[in-house]
Amino acid sequence: MRAQLAAFLDRPVTRYGIMAVILFNAVILGLETSPRVMARAGGLITFLDGLCLAIFTVEILAKLYARGPAYFRSGWNIFDFVIVAVSYMPAGQGFAVLRSLRILRLLRVVSVAPTLRRVVEGFLSALPGMGSVFLLMGVIFYIASVMATRLFSATFPDWFGDLGSSAYTLFQIMTLESWSMGVVRPVMEVHPDAWLFFVPFILVTTFAVVNLVVGLIVNSMQDAHAEESNAATDSYRDDVLKRLERIEKALERR
Amino acid sequence: MRAQLAAFLDRPVTRYGIMAVILFNAVILGLETSPRVMARAGGLITFLDGLCLAIFTVEILAKLYARGPAYFRSGWNIFDFVIVAVSYMPAGQGFAVLRSLRILRLLRVVSVAPTLRRVVEGFLSALPGMGSVFLLMGVIFYIASVMATRLFSATFPDWFGDLGSSAYTLFQIMTLESWSMGVVRPVMEVHPDAWLFFVPFILVTTFAVVNLVVGLIVNSMQDAHAEESNAATDSYRDDVLKRLERIEKALERR
Amino acid sequence: MRAQLAAFLDRPVTRYGIMAVILFNAVILGLETSPRVMARAGGLITFLDGLCLAIFTVEILAKLYARGPAYFRSGWNIFDFVIVAVSYMPAGQGFAVLRSLRILRLLRVVSVAPTLRRVVEGFLSALPGMGSVFLLMGVIFYIASVMATRLFSATFPDWFGDLGSSAYTLFQIMTLESWSMGVVRPVMEVHPDAWLFFVPFILVTTFAVVNLVVGLIVNSMQDAHAEESNAATDSYRDDVLKRLERIEKALERR
Amino acid sequence: MRAQLAAFLDRPVTRYGIMAVILFNAVILGLETSPRVMARAGGLITFLDGLCLAIFTVEILAKLYARGPAYFRSGWNIFDFVIVAVSYMPAGQGFAVLRSLRILRLLRVVSVAPTLRRVVEGFLSALPGMGSVFLLMGVIFYIASVMATRLFSATFPDWFGDLGSSAYTLFQIMTLESWSMGVVRPVMEVHPDAWLFFVPFILVTTFAVVNLVVGLIVNSMQDAHAEESNAATDSYRDDVLKRLERIEKALERR
Repeated sequence: MRAQLAAFLDRPVTRYGIMAVILFNAVILGLETSPRVMARAGGLITFLDGLCLAIFTVEILAKLYARGPAYFRSGWNIFDFVIVAVSYMPAGQGFAVLRSLRILRLLRVVSVAPTLRRVVEGFLSALPGMGSVFLLMGVIFYIASVMATRLFSATFPDWFGDLGSSAYTLFQIMTLESWSMGVVRPVMEVHPDAWLFFVPFILVTTFAVVNLVVGLIVNSMQDAHAEESNAATDSYRDDVLKRLERIEKALERR
Repeated sequence: MRAQLAAFLDRPVTRYGIMAVILFNAVILGLETSPRVMARAGGLITFLDGLCLAIFTVEILAKLYARGPAYFRSGWNIFDFVIVAVSYMPAGQGFAVLRSLRILRLLRVVSVAPTLRRVVEGFLSALPGMGSVFLLMGVIFYIASVMATRLFSATFPDWFGDLGSSAYTLFQIMTLESWSMGVVRPVMEVHPDAWLFFVPFILVTTFAVVNLVVGLIVNSMQDAHAEESNAATDSYRDDVLKRLERIEKALERR
Repeated sequence: MRAQLAAFLDRPVTRYGIMAVILFNAVILGLETSPRVMARAGGLITFLDGLCLAIFTVEILAKLYARGPAYFRSGWNIFDFVIVAVSYMPAGQGFAVLRSLRILRLLRVVSVAPTLRRVVEGFLSALPGMGSVFLLMGVIFYIASVMATRLFSATFPDWFGDLGSSAYTLFQIMTLESWSMGVVRPVMEVHPDAWLFFVPFILVTTFAVVNLVVGLIVNSMQDAHAEESNAATDSYRDDVLKRLERIEKALERR
Repeated sequence: MRAQLAAFLDRPVTRYGIMAVILFNAVILGLETSPRVMARAGGLITFLDGLCLAIFTVEILAKLYARGPAYFRSGWNIFDFVIVAVSYMPAGQGFAVLRSLRILRLLRVVSVAPTLRRVVEGFLSALPGMGSVFLLMGVIFYIASVMATRLFSATFPDWFGDLGSSAYTLFQIMTLESWSMGVVRPVMEVHPDAWLFFVPFILVTTFAVVNLVVGLIVNSMQDAHAEESNAATDSYRDDVLKRLERIEKALERR
């Protein structure tokens, strides 16, 4: 029975069915944002959303039964489980945020469609290699936040009032959004030397981001290069070495 | 007769003539934007534009006759056909938009000039490989639009009033244009935790865009690499293998 | 005498001397921007600037005499000649712009310092390969300018009043500067569908720019790759082929 | 005794201890930015900060004693020394800036953690190769600053009043922040041809920055390529050449 269930769950038809439910649910949740639609057919929308949730719950319970504890060994399964579990949180007491998280169910399309899955896995595989650069950027942000808070919190409490505000403002500056007209020029009217802090900050963080991207490119190139060329090259090299060995042996024999 | 016409249409002189008409038409349509020129020579401008359209129409009819249904097998021919056909739409009833589309005829320069054609074909050939990343970005945008609409439509109807407005605002945020000073700071004054939604959105979409660019670079490199090195390498390898074989045979013979 | 002069001009000491004059002139022209310095030592500054110009003129006349018409065969010489010639234009009648062009003399440092020269030559060598992409972007800009002028010139004459204004505004939009908050949102209040024009414009031009950069990277990589690997690989391959030939001959001889 | 001390300082435990003190100090300096925390436990915070400084001082003195003058041969040691020395500057007379520099001590985490050290060394190793491009950008900025000051200082003293203001404004324009809506459009209302200065400036500096990034990518690729492929390729090539030599000798012997 378990094996049958597992086989049923693995069949492409089942996967396509689940994907259809996910997409249908996404449309339903999209319609829910329209007050006009909700006024007319709110009951139906809510019912269909509940139906979709019920189907997801049954699917996950079936998988849990079919696979047993092995279910939780796959990161994607945990991902599915958490997304569906979030929908059962008590969201009645005005927790609009929690209710809005239900649309995250559409992310399940990633775990169901193999091509999207591979893209996301490709993204994630690039992250560990960039770990130390991220750490370094964290250090730079913390230092800059502390300095900015100490220097400008008294005069610009909105932007640099505490560590959090400073970090947010510095993130904005790193993205170069309104950094000069919006932030640094007003600050420089009070602290004329403020550019000595902000311009190096921009140069250093931009350079770090560029290095992140360069690292990403080099890694992808190496992966692509390794995959591509080696098959042909390896077989050629093996061939050459084998032939040379045979020639050597032929010469020795005589 | 058909074959003669086809030969005539394929001659470089004909192609250069058509290109001259396209460029002349572009100048005419540029002059049409100037009220001063139109006040003085509006009749002439309109006549010359009609003349250019007539030439294009004759060219396309000639090609249709010369090639027969095979004409529609080339994407570039369909492109030419549609661009000219648009000019015959009833644009009298104040459809200023349709009339402004006539300048798209200048795009025909791409289908006529082989170098531009190759550039555009190079651009288009890169798209399918990025299909799944585009799909993923579509999923992210849909999720983010639904969430933003649910969370902020009541307080910021101009930016997040419905799914369309939210998607537009999120596109603006992805391009980093005024994301903080223009959108997120005002939103944070009502919803202090809004950065928990926007900052991750920026990080994820920026990372996805960077990955698109990286993919583009890696693909172009592989194409260039494959073209370049293989000719020399292949002939060398063939040479080595042939010589080794001959040596082996020479040793066996004795 | 000519040959002696040519030898003198080619000596490193002469080159360093000229470079010193260029840098000194740059400092002088920098000081000229300060009203305080000009009030105190305006006469001296003007005299020293004239002295530098005299030295450059003598240098160029000497080179012209030493090399003859061959002088104008080098692009860098023409560059030097034009920059110095500009300083002799009648700039008295309030042509502040022409006077401000004198600082371009500092660019001569590029033609004198070999490393800077190589950098600029590297930049310029990349341009021809991107010619057709530039042409395509020109076509796109012309089309978009004509369309924007036809559609929005009546309602937004400041931004889209004529082809020139439209092209400038579209360039601003391509750089993503204030494209939404500054331009497209106000336009959309009058023409709600304007995003159908601007968002595709942004996507297409950004994609074209990305492709330019990708092309630049691929070209640089190929150049670097070709230089680097081939020396070692070629000598190895020659070695292998020579040895194989000798072995074949040794086998034949017997 | 010296050797013992050096051995003690090199032990991983010591290094982890120092890193713990650095991180603890960073938290302390972070807490110092909060007026609420300082009001409650200001004395304790100040004491703990002093304690951390004392530990760093003892560590550096110990290293100085253990290594002798060789201590100053490592750039990282000088870095540590300067950072700690800054804390002993007389910061009492309202030098809030100097006091805020104490958070730079967190940068010591880079000199202590080998992975971060390698990242920073990688960053720094890329700089010399870009030296001439930086020089060229310096030349461009100086020329543009002098020109902008001469042309616009009378009409826009806030942005282009002197060389420093002009350089800052041009840096802002290079980052594309509010370049058009914030700066160039207002300037063009007084000087309609100002775009002839600013648009080429944007194109040239952006192109130079892109070339910097391209250079970075090509360098990283070459380093990665050299490291990766050569190990396998070299051993293969050595093998082939050795075997060919043996075959040749075997043929000669007979």
